[in-house]
Amino acid sequence: MSGPIFEKIALVGIGLIGSSLARVIRREKLAGHIAISTRSAATLDRAEELGLGDSYSTDAAEAVKDADLVIISVPVGSSGEVAAQIAPALKAGAIVTDVGSTKRSVIAQIEPHMPANVHFIPGHPLAGTEKSGPDAGFADLFENRWCIFTPLPGTDAAALEKLSEFWRRCGSDIDTMDPEHHDMVLAIVSHLPHIIAYNIVGTADDLEAVTKTEVIKYSASGFRDFTRLAASDPTMWRDVCLHNKDAILEMLARFSEDLASLQRAIRWGDGEKLFDMFTRTRAVRRSIIEAGQDIDVPDFGRQAIEHPDVLAAQPKS
Amino acid sequence: MSGPIFEKIALVGIGLIGSSLARVIRREKLAGHIAISTRSAATLDRAEELGLGDSYSTDAAEAVKDADLVIISVPVGSSGEVAAQIAPALKAGAIVTDVGSTKRSVIAQIEPHMPANVHFIPGHPLAGTEKSGPDAGFADLFENRWCIFTPLPGTDAAALEKLSEFWRRCGSDIDTMDPEHHDMVLAIVSHLPHIIAYNIVGTADDLEAVTKTEVIKYSASGFRDFTRLAASDPTMWRDVCLHNKDAILEMLARFSEDLASLQRAIRWGDGEKLFDMFTRTRAVRRSIIEAGQDIDVPDFGRQAIEHPDVLAAQPKS
Repeated sequence: MSGPIFEKIALVGIGLIGSSLARVIRREKLAGHIAISTRSAATLDRAEELGLGDSYSTDAAEAVKDADLVIISVPVGSSGEVAAQIAPALKAGAIVTDVGSTKRSVIAQIEPHMPANVHFIPGHPLAGTEKSGPDAGFADLFENRWCIFTPLPGTDAAALEKLSEFWRRCGSDIDTMDPEHHDMVLAIVSHLPHIIAYNIVGTADDLEAVTKTEVIKYSASGFRDFTRLAASDPTMWRDVCLHNKDAILEMLARFSEDLASLQRAIRWGDGEKLFDMFTRTRAVRRSIIEAGQDIDVPDFGRQAIEHPDVLAAQPKS
Repeated sequence: MSGPIFEKIALVGIGLIGSSLARVIRREKLAGHIAISTRSAATLDRAEELGLGDSYSTDAAEAVKDADLVIISVPVGSSGEVAAQIAPALKAGAIVTDVGSTKRSVIAQIEPHMPANVHFIPGHPLAGTEKSGPDAGFADLFENRWCIFTPLPGTDAAALEKLSEFWRRCGSDIDTMDPEHHDMVLAIVSHLPHIIAYNIVGTADDLEAVTKTEVIKYSASGFRDFTRLAASDPTMWRDVCLHNKDAILEMLARFSEDLASLQRAIRWGDGEKLFDMFTRTRAVRRSIIEAGQDIDVPDFGRQAIEHPDVLAAQPKS
């Protein structure tokens, strides 16, 4: 299938995700018209400089007028406000979706505002980098990444299929889940890792015995990996913490229990237990590489970028 | 300066570090003869198949005979055993060094065995990947990485300079530190990140509500970054935990305190505190990139490997 899927697509929010969508929509010719809206005039100007859309407005209601597909790509805490703004201007039969990393809260915020003649289908593309803003997006962001829908009961099958087709043509694979389960899965695979990364970088930044200069200078020994995640957008992550609280607190409690047990093994010099704990995790890594969810080059490929000959020389494992 | 620095170099241990040394010594012509020793006959055979050295022996004492430089590259817990084995065979005036990630313990294990006519200079190149074994090494591993010496009182200046010259020609920058401080710095920049990574992967692996398949399938959302560190050599990391216990327990205690405070902010919905915590960490990341300790391409450069056009398109930040 080719040709535009929608006559007009409105993108509300033009950060990493919104601007990547704009780029892939353009490249794949998925829409006749791309309308871009964001609250910040400076960000909107930048989107226009980058030529990301066909029309630009700081008024979301203006942007969604006549749109067949509306994609809300804002920090999850702003979902309700955006929904209230756009609701009166939505076209009958339009599909409204979002990209938020928490689904129960987003549904609770958006659904009450949606007119009966609009198809609201909550969605979440599992894609991103530590960069943010309209400059950070790129058309390949969604390629071979999952897009999870958490459809509400009674969702129109034709609308769901049309939205699925849209995401497939952005390069994604589609999955569906109920919102509660989505929030639990994301708490462990995404939210907890980010929170832990933010925390360890904070701990290092607070030390007196080791200087900040030393932390920076010797960071390549492991620490720098955490700083990448901890460089992600603070507004986005504040909102995730506030809007997926229960699942995150559950995962944090489990993590802390496990850490206490590991700490005890270190204190008591239980080498056998440490060895067992450090061995089972290798199998998880292997499965992730087999599932195509990460590349099997050492050091995430940093070496390959700095020294292209290394990649060629590595044995296939 | 060019030409061999040492007539004969003996490498005791031929894993990621030892085999990378073998490769760079050969490439840079730093020795007239490379003698390789490791306990495992299978690993030694593999090193020979790879052509890493000029002579091979499972007997470390045999390998170090007549060597001007001996580099011990074994898990830190085996340092004492290796030192006892090689001590009687060491040449007068030889330099003995190691590459271990804990220095107080390594000194305590090796120093008592060293004859008075030998220069023992503890060292630690801050370089590695999550891969292990003789196949995983590569000649560029030490390029632009720090090598830290923790010299004992009364260390011969000429010997220290000769060893420094060796590491500089391997591509490294040299630093010196006292062993206690080294162990504290490494506890935060390397040991804690690895322990946390092992722990989170263990927590995820234990869940019942989220299946293992889901953890793998959706790991690209952040979790996969931790699995890389958690795929590192379990023997090496068991030994690090057992041999840098005090500094690691101190860092773990601080990390857990900070995490409890973050957890409280999530439970009580303190968005301002979360935003502040998630903002200050960005500065640390920026400093690391400015210090040349990581590459400033999104997602560690994974995107650049999968889609080479992305790297070219990214704005310089």
